[in-house]
Amino acid sequence: MDTKLNREILLAARPQGMVELSNFKLVHTRVSNLEEGEMLIKTRYLTVDPYMRGRMSDRPSYIEPFEIDKAITGEIVGEIVESKNAHFHPGDFVIGFMNWADFNISDGKNLRTLDPQITSPSTALGVLGMPGLTAYFGLLKIGQPKKGETLVVSGAAGAVGSVVGQIGKIYGCTVVGIAGSEDKIRYIEQELGFDAGINYKSDSFLKDLTKACPNGVDIYFDNVGGEISDAVIMRINSHARVVLCGQISMYNAEKIEMGPRLNWILLTKSALMQGFIVTDFAAHYAEGMKQLNQWVHEGRIKYRENFIEGLENAPKAFLGLFKGENIGKQLVKV
Amino acid sequence: MDTKLNREILLAARPQGMVELSNFKLVHTRVSNLEEGEMLIKTRYLTVDPYMRGRMSDRPSYIEPFEIDKAITGEIVGEIVESKNAHFHPGDFVIGFMNWADFNISDGKNLRTLDPQITSPSTALGVLGMPGLTAYFGLLKIGQPKKGETLVVSGAAGAVGSVVGQIGKIYGCTVVGIAGSEDKIRYIEQELGFDAGINYKSDSFLKDLTKACPNGVDIYFDNVGGEISDAVIMRINSHARVVLCGQISMYNAEKIEMGPRLNWILLTKSALMQGFIVTDFAAHYAEGMKQLNQWVHEGRIKYRENFIEGLENAPKAFLGLFKGENIGKQLVKV
Repeated sequence: MDTKLNREILLAARPQGMVELSNFKLVHTRVSNLEEGEMLIKTRYLTVDPYMRGRMSDRPSYIEPFEIDKAITGEIVGEIVESKNAHFHPGDFVIGFMNWADFNISDGKNLRTLDPQITSPSTALGVLGMPGLTAYFGLLKIGQPKKGETLVVSGAAGAVGSVVGQIGKIYGCTVVGIAGSEDKIRYIEQELGFDAGINYKSDSFLKDLTKACPNGVDIYFDNVGGEISDAVIMRINSHARVVLCGQISMYNAEKIEMGPRLNWILLTKSALMQGFIVTDFAAHYAEGMKQLNQWVHEGRIKYRENFIEGLENAPKAFLGLFKGENIGKQLVKV
Repeated sequence: MDTKLNREILLAARPQGMVELSNFKLVHTRVSNLEEGEMLIKTRYLTVDPYMRGRMSDRPSYIEPFEIDKAITGEIVGEIVESKNAHFHPGDFVIGFMNWADFNISDGKNLRTLDPQITSPSTALGVLGMPGLTAYFGLLKIGQPKKGETLVVSGAAGAVGSVVGQIGKIYGCTVVGIAGSEDKIRYIEQELGFDAGINYKSDSFLKDLTKACPNGVDIYFDNVGGEISDAVIMRINSHARVVLCGQISMYNAEKIEMGPRLNWILLTKSALMQGFIVTDFAAHYAEGMKQLNQWVHEGRIKYRENFIEGLENAPKAFLGLFKGENIGKQLVKV
């Protein structure tokens, strides 16, 4: 075990504009010996999330940028294969921020053992993890959904948006999802029970949006930003809530893009726009996780996972996020 | 009295772009006889406020547009000169929404008798009226100022901004005001006690703003919008609050202006942006009025009133708002 081969994916170069495969590189390394208190974790699933694009640039943000020639890090579900730590045992599944690598060594700090009752450990990276909690807190704490209101969610077929819409239905909202393919529209309408799905790539997008929201928009859960969001914000009602969760349409922009100044709409509508990151609600994770678990087990929240096989394909999976390739949670199975 | 001459100011035409004197017209009319329950009110002070520009256009808003060839209406402080209403007596000062005219006839609905102890009845249109309450609720309920935070307010020498900054000082904030002339800067720094005043017309505006906010911006109380606001929003801290009170730089625009898309800043900073109109807080007016009264009488909130004489000059006073002519509350004395 002391000379186990490892592979790691490093940041090769910061992207200029759209992220490319050449911004990553895979290197072969070896795993060092375990010290007392450490354990060896084999990566089973890693997650690719849009926010990681921000870490590839070096502009200041709420989270440190990745460093050139160092491993990309992200949430990983792994299995302990060797342990010199009394709290973790071989066969345990754990989750935590670790390197994009076949193996990680950890002293267990900031790792959480996964409940073996969870249907699949991979859900800890999706519907029963950060994306699920992001949907839960963003919608409930900021969006404040009320029965009969109209909720519009962009990125509706994604890991966060799909959960947002279903929670909206549980709360009695009319839920309109915006997505970018007919497959996604079918998924949210037929499998997830959204009231309407709208394809933003369609020529009739604006007309379709108006038609799907005859009473205006009370809550907009925004995962994408840009022109899609302009269209929704132009249709908000008095005292609407705009939940800023993601701005994926902007993440690969080299310069700040220009768009219409819509603050006067927020003003005259007494509307709220609130940005958040899920860690703002860390104190309430237990509550959120319990509720999400219940809804998933009751079948009231459905989810889809999309797996790409092989650590070496993690960059490709990540790039797919910006091409709108995935329905549901995009994961890499290692 | 039954054939008293009257003058009224009507909306002659909806403005195209910047509002002009030709959008108004003054007409001579006569006051009709009082019916039982009515009274005749002589206008003493009328107020011009930026939001009224919105009412001159016919796009939908939270308040009805003015009608062509009908009188402009707004808040007016008047004196009762004749009364057939048991609740109101000649000599009483009242405030309410009435026509821009020398005389109004009212049945008393939606009129409020002014407390004769108020220093001057004109303050009911300013620091002890809607502008004062707008500052009070916008800052306290949305801005949530905390000791040691940095508060930036635009339109800082105006009726609302000047009160916002002073309440910010009472709450222990570092207060930075943005205004458009050296006179205004002197006023907010030397008379009102702001920590810094910045002239947005200066070439060094951005540098001055950065220097005045070495710890970033926690609260931005926005009366103006546009590029000034872009500059402030680019400097916000985590969990900042942006209070959208006015967007005066936009009110005369014929088309929606373009500006940088800054929602990603709100997102990564977990920041709030909230529009409001003062009536959102109508249930709390009594509380706000009591506190403002106390602060004014203690000298902790100072105010300045700027009078133009003559009903016929009301349009000119209104136009002055968009040229940044006034320090403090702009009123018309009739």
